[in-house]
Amino acid sequence: MARTKLLLDCDPGLDDALALLLAHSDPDLELVAVTTVGGNVDLVSTTRNARVLREYLGFVDVPIAAGAAQPLVRDAENAAHVHGEAGLGTVRLPAATLPASDRHAVDVIIETLRAAPGEVHLVATGPLTNIALALAREPRVVEWAASFVIMGGSFTRGNATVAAEFNIYADPEAAAVVFAAGWQVVMIGLDLTLQAIVTPQVVDRMRHLGPLGVDLVVPLATFWVDPNDADWSGQAVHDVCAVAYIARPELFQSRPARVEVETQGHHTSGMTVVDFTSSAPNAIVPVELDVAGFWDYVHSAWQLTADGHAND
Amino acid sequence: MARTKLLLDCDPGLDDALALLLAHSDPDLELVAVTTVGGNVDLVSTTRNARVLREYLGFVDVPIAAGAAQPLVRDAENAAHVHGEAGLGTVRLPAATLPASDRHAVDVIIETLRAAPGEVHLVATGPLTNIALALAREPRVVEWAASFVIMGGSFTRGNATVAAEFNIYADPEAAAVVFAAGWQVVMIGLDLTLQAIVTPQVVDRMRHLGPLGVDLVVPLATFWVDPNDADWSGQAVHDVCAVAYIARPELFQSRPARVEVETQGHHTSGMTVVDFTSSAPNAIVPVELDVAGFWDYVHSAWQLTADGHAND
Amino acid sequence: MARTKLLLDCDPGLDDALALLLAHSDPDLELVAVTTVGGNVDLVSTTRNARVLREYLGFVDVPIAAGAAQPLVRDAENAAHVHGEAGLGTVRLPAATLPASDRHAVDVIIETLRAAPGEVHLVATGPLTNIALALAREPRVVEWAASFVIMGGSFTRGNATVAAEFNIYADPEAAAVVFAAGWQVVMIGLDLTLQAIVTPQVVDRMRHLGPLGVDLVVPLATFWVDPNDADWSGQAVHDVCAVAYIARPELFQSRPARVEVETQGHHTSGMTVVDFTSSAPNAIVPVELDVAGFWDYVHSAWQLTADGHAND
Amino acid sequence: MARTKLLLDCDPGLDDALALLLAHSDPDLELVAVTTVGGNVDLVSTTRNARVLREYLGFVDVPIAAGAAQPLVRDAENAAHVHGEAGLGTVRLPAATLPASDRHAVDVIIETLRAAPGEVHLVATGPLTNIALALAREPRVVEWAASFVIMGGSFTRGNATVAAEFNIYADPEAAAVVFAAGWQVVMIGLDLTLQAIVTPQVVDRMRHLGPLGVDLVVPLATFWVDPNDADWSGQAVHDVCAVAYIARPELFQSRPARVEVETQGHHTSGMTVVDFTSSAPNAIVPVELDVAGFWDYVHSAWQLTADGHAND
Repeated sequence: MARTKLLLDCDPGLDDALALLLAHSDPDLELVAVTTVGGNVDLVSTTRNARVLREYLGFVDVPIAAGAAQPLVRDAENAAHVHGEAGLGTVRLPAATLPASDRHAVDVIIETLRAAPGEVHLVATGPLTNIALALAREPRVVEWAASFVIMGGSFTRGNATVAAEFNIYADPEAAAVVFAAGWQVVMIGLDLTLQAIVTPQVVDRMRHLGPLGVDLVVPLATFWVDPNDADWSGQAVHDVCAVAYIARPELFQSRPARVEVETQGHHTSGMTVVDFTSSAPNAIVPVELDVAGFWDYVHSAWQLTADGHAND
Repeated sequence: MARTKLLLDCDPGLDDALALLLAHSDPDLELVAVTTVGGNVDLVSTTRNARVLREYLGFVDVPIAAGAAQPLVRDAENAAHVHGEAGLGTVRLPAATLPASDRHAVDVIIETLRAAPGEVHLVATGPLTNIALALAREPRVVEWAASFVIMGGSFTRGNATVAAEFNIYADPEAAAVVFAAGWQVVMIGLDLTLQAIVTPQVVDRMRHLGPLGVDLVVPLATFWVDPNDADWSGQAVHDVCAVAYIARPELFQSRPARVEVETQGHHTSGMTVVDFTSSAPNAIVPVELDVAGFWDYVHSAWQLTADGHAND
Repeated sequence: MARTKLLLDCDPGLDDALALLLAHSDPDLELVAVTTVGGNVDLVSTTRNARVLREYLGFVDVPIAAGAAQPLVRDAENAAHVHGEAGLGTVRLPAATLPASDRHAVDVIIETLRAAPGEVHLVATGPLTNIALALAREPRVVEWAASFVIMGGSFTRGNATVAAEFNIYADPEAAAVVFAAGWQVVMIGLDLTLQAIVTPQVVDRMRHLGPLGVDLVVPLATFWVDPNDADWSGQAVHDVCAVAYIARPELFQSRPARVEVETQGHHTSGMTVVDFTSSAPNAIVPVELDVAGFWDYVHSAWQLTADGHAND
Repeated sequence: MARTKLLLDCDPGLDDALALLLAHSDPDLELVAVTTVGGNVDLVSTTRNARVLREYLGFVDVPIAAGAAQPLVRDAENAAHVHGEAGLGTVRLPAATLPASDRHAVDVIIETLRAAPGEVHLVATGPLTNIALALAREPRVVEWAASFVIMGGSFTRGNATVAAEFNIYADPEAAAVVFAAGWQVVMIGLDLTLQAIVTPQVVDRMRHLGPLGVDLVVPLATFWVDPNDADWSGQAVHDVCAVAYIARPELFQSRPARVEVETQGHHTSGMTVVDFTSSAPNAIVPVELDVAGFWDYVHSAWQLTADGHAND
C-alpha cells in the first residue's frame, strides 16, 4: 500500500526533533521533504539541527531546504531559553556532512505540492512564515495540499504570553494569512498537546528504546524536567502530535471552528481566537487525545528506528 | 456584632436581581446603597428594576442612585437578548412608588465610602463605568473601600465574544482604569461563576422557598432553561458569587494575578489577560468554588427572606 | 448690550494665561468661571496658576474649580519642558490668597451651563478630560452650551508627536468622547494657531502695554524665543485663538468637517483625522486667520487691562 | 556613457503608464525589467497593461514579470474607480502578442539586482508587496540595489483616506517591512507629487507630441479632468516623479526623515508618519519639485519617443 506522504516545515527545536523522528520512523509515512524556518532558535540553527538529525537518523535522501529567517512583518523572537542555545537541549550529535538544498524552502513547498496534487500532507510545526510566503507566491498550494496540519495556537491560554502560543506569537501576520487562505487548517493547539505529557511511565518506555532512547529521545523529552524526580509534572511533545495526526487521526477528537488570529492587541497579539459556534469554520481543532493510544503508536514507531539503531 | 457593609453597583439583570436578594437576605450583610449603570439593559431599565426589587423585597431605606447610561468611551451595547427586554426575564413586579435618589451614582459611591473609610465593601456586578468615573473624580476611593469585588472577566474564554466576558467587553476602558487604580481587585470571572450552575437539584430547593421562590427566584434563575427538562445544562448565577464572596470568602480558592484589560485588539477587545505568574499582581482571582457550601449559604440566606414573605 | 458669557476650561500654561488675559480684558466678554485640568503641567500647578493670575489680573469674582488630575484612561503626560516647571515660563507672580472653589470642575461646568441654557460658551484649551467627564455625568451639556470651542488637534501634522497635537494626545479617549457627543465642535487646531505667531512686530506692541506687557505678556509670549534676536521664528499663542473665536468669529475662515480621534495607532495615537468632504460633519474647523485683524483685536483688548494696571 | 539602469515595479495605472513611457523614452535610462503587482487594478490587468504598453511603445526586449496578486496580509483593495475598470482610463491599445515572463516578479527582482550589484536602481510605483516578498526571500536586495525609490506616502494628508496614500494604504504591512529593511528609501509622496500637476499649459505641450500625445499621454493625464475646461484643477502624474528622480535628482529638494508606517490605527492605517527631526533617519523625502524643470525634462524625453512614433 502506498505510504502517506508528508512535507514537514519545522524549526527544530526539542519536539520538532521528535516529530522528525516519528515522521521518519512510521513505515506508513513517507517524509518527502523537510523545510526549515527561524523560530525556536534562529534559521541557521534550525537548518543545522535538521541536517544533523537527517544523518543521525538516516533519512539521507530527503531534501532539507532553508526558508525564512525572519517573520513576515515583525522582528524575530526566539525561544532559545526553552530549547537550549543550539535548539536541541543537551543533545550533541555529529556534524552533518550533507548540505541543505540550494533551493529556497518556499520553492520546495510549492514544487513538492504541485508535483503531486492531493497527495502530500503539509505539516508545519514552527512559525508559519514559510507557509504564508508560499501562499503569497502560489495560492494554489491550498488546492494541492492533501491536508494542512499545524502545531500552534490554543483555545484557552498561551505559553509565549498569557494569551498566545509561541508559533503564532512569533509571526501573527503569517498565521493570519494562513488561516484566511481558504483551506481547512487542522489546528493542533496547546489544549491538545498538553495532553501529550512525558510522564515517568513514558520515560521508562523511552529508556527501553536503547541508544536512540538514551542518547536522543529521553534528553529531548526531559530537557525541562528531571526524569529521576518522581514529583515532576512533565514536558509535552507538542509537535509530535501534528505528525501523529497525519498517521492516526482516529486518536483525536476534533471540532470545527472559526479561528481568527489577533494581530492588533496590546496584550493579546498572536492569540488564536477560536469560535466553535461559527457558521463559517476555517479550521478543525482537535480537542481530546487518546493519550494511551497516542503513546502506543508513537512508541511502536520509534521502536522500529531504535531496532535499526541497535543493529548499527 | 457589626454587620458587613456593602455598596452594590449593578445593572439588573437576572443574576443582579438574585445578588440584590442575597445582599438583602443575609443578616450578616448590610446593604448601604445601590447604584445602577447601563449594561445588561439600559440605565432606565436597570434603575427601574432596582427600584421595584427594593419595594418587593422590602429594603426601602436603602438609597438607589442612577449613574452612567453610556460606557466611558464607546457606544453602549446591551444584553437584552440574554436578560429579556425589561431585564428581569419573565418576572413582572409591581411598579415602584419610591423614587431613585436625586444624587448621581458616582457621588453616592464617593460619599458613602468617604463617610466610613475601611468599612464599606464595594461590589460591582455590571460594566465598570460608574467605578471608573468615581476614581476619576476622587482617587481616594481606592483607600476608602474595605475591599473591591467585581463579577467580570475570565482567565480562559468569554461569553460576549470568544475572548471577552460581557461586563468587561461592554466598557473595556473603564475596566482598564479600574484595574490600574492601585487597589486589589477581586475578579470573580466566568471560570468561577460557571461553577455556580442552577442544576435541577438547585431549582428544587428554590421551589421550596414559597412565593419568593416561585414568583422571583426560579423564573430569574431558569429564564434560559426549562426547569422541567431533565436534560438541561443550567444557567449560572454569576453576580450572586460576588456578594457571596463578601460574606463567605472561605468558599472560594483564589490566586493572585496581574490582570490587564485588552482595549485594542480586533478580536479580543474587552478580554481580561490574567497572568498568575506576575510579580506585580493587581488582583485576586477566585478559581474554585465550594459549590455545595455556596448553595447551602445562598439558600439559607434566601430562606430568611422567603420566611418573611410567606408571612406577608 | 449683554456681554458674551464664556466658561474657560484650561491648563495654564503660557498661552492659557494669555487666553485668560483676553477673556478678562475684552469688555464684550464675561468670564463666568474657570475650570482647571492636568495637562501642560500637573493639576496642582494649573490650578495654582489660574489662581495667581486671577488676583494679579483682578477677576476675583470668577470662581476657579479644579478638575481631573489624570486623563480618562491613560497615564498623565505633561509638557513642562514647553511651559517651564511651574507652567508660566519665567513669570513669577505673587501667591494667591483666594482659594479655589470647593466644587469639582465637572460640577461647575454642568451647573453653570444648566443655569443659563444657550447662554454660556464653553471653551477648552487643555486636554478634554473635564469635558468628557461632564458629558458622562450630564449629556445635556451638549444642548446647554451656547457653543463649544477647543484649542486642539490639527489637519496636517502634530506637535506632541509627528501626528498628534498635545491636548488631544494627552487624552485621546476624552477627545473621542467629546467629538462623538452630538454637538458641533469648533476645532481650532495647529494649522490655524500657527498663523498666530508672535513676531518681533507683535512683541514691540506688547512692550508698549507697560508693566502688564513687560512683566506678563512678553515673557509668556517669548519664553521659547529671544525677542532681541531679529532672526527668530516666533512662538504661537494657540489658546488665545480659541477665546478670540468667541468674540470675533469673523476673523476666522472655517470649513465643516468630520473629525475622528485616533485612539489605537502605534504611531498616530491622539491624531485628529479631519475629513473635509464628509457628509456627516461633527466639527467646524477654522483654517485661515485674519492675522492683522487678530492682533489688532487682541492688542486693543489687552490695552484696556494694561491701562487699568498702569493706573494701579 | 553607460545608461542608468532601473527596474520598475508597478501597477499600471494611468500614471504608471506615463512613468513607463518616461523610463523608456529617456536615452540616459535603461529599463532592465518591469515587474507588476496588484494595486490600482488587479494583477491580471496591471500585467496586461504593462504588456500592451511594451509593444505599443516598443521596449520589446524588456522582460515583464507578474508578482503578487494580493497584499502581504490584508485583502486586496483596488482603485479602479480612479484608473478606470481596465486601469488605463479611456485608452485602448492593441492586445499584446508577447507573453509575460514565466518567472515570478520576486525572482526577477532578486536575480536582476544580484546580477549587477550596485548598478540597478529599484523603483516601485505600486503597493510594496513584491518588494517585501523579495526582502523576505533575499535580504541582500538591500545591498544590491543602487538606490530604492518609491512613489507612496505623504507627510501631511492622504488620498485613499484622510491619513493614508493609496500605495501604502493598500499594503501597510509590506510598506512597514520595506521601510524597516535597513536601506535608505527615497519616499516620493503626495506632498511632492501634487506639485506635478497637469495644467492646461502642460496639456498643450502634450498635444504637440503628435499621435503619442493625442492617443496616449493626454487621455492618461486628463482622465479625471476635462482638458477643454479652463477652470480645472488638474491631475497629478505621481509615478512619473519617481522615474524622474532617478534621472534628474537635482530637480528635487529633499530632507532626511524617519518614516514609520502605521499598521494598527482605526482611522490611520497605512499612514506614513514622517519625522524630519529624527536622529535615526531611514528615508530621504523630496519636499519641493522644480516644476518647470520637471516638465521640461519629461517633455523632452517624451518628445524623443513621439518623434519615433511619428515616423512609424
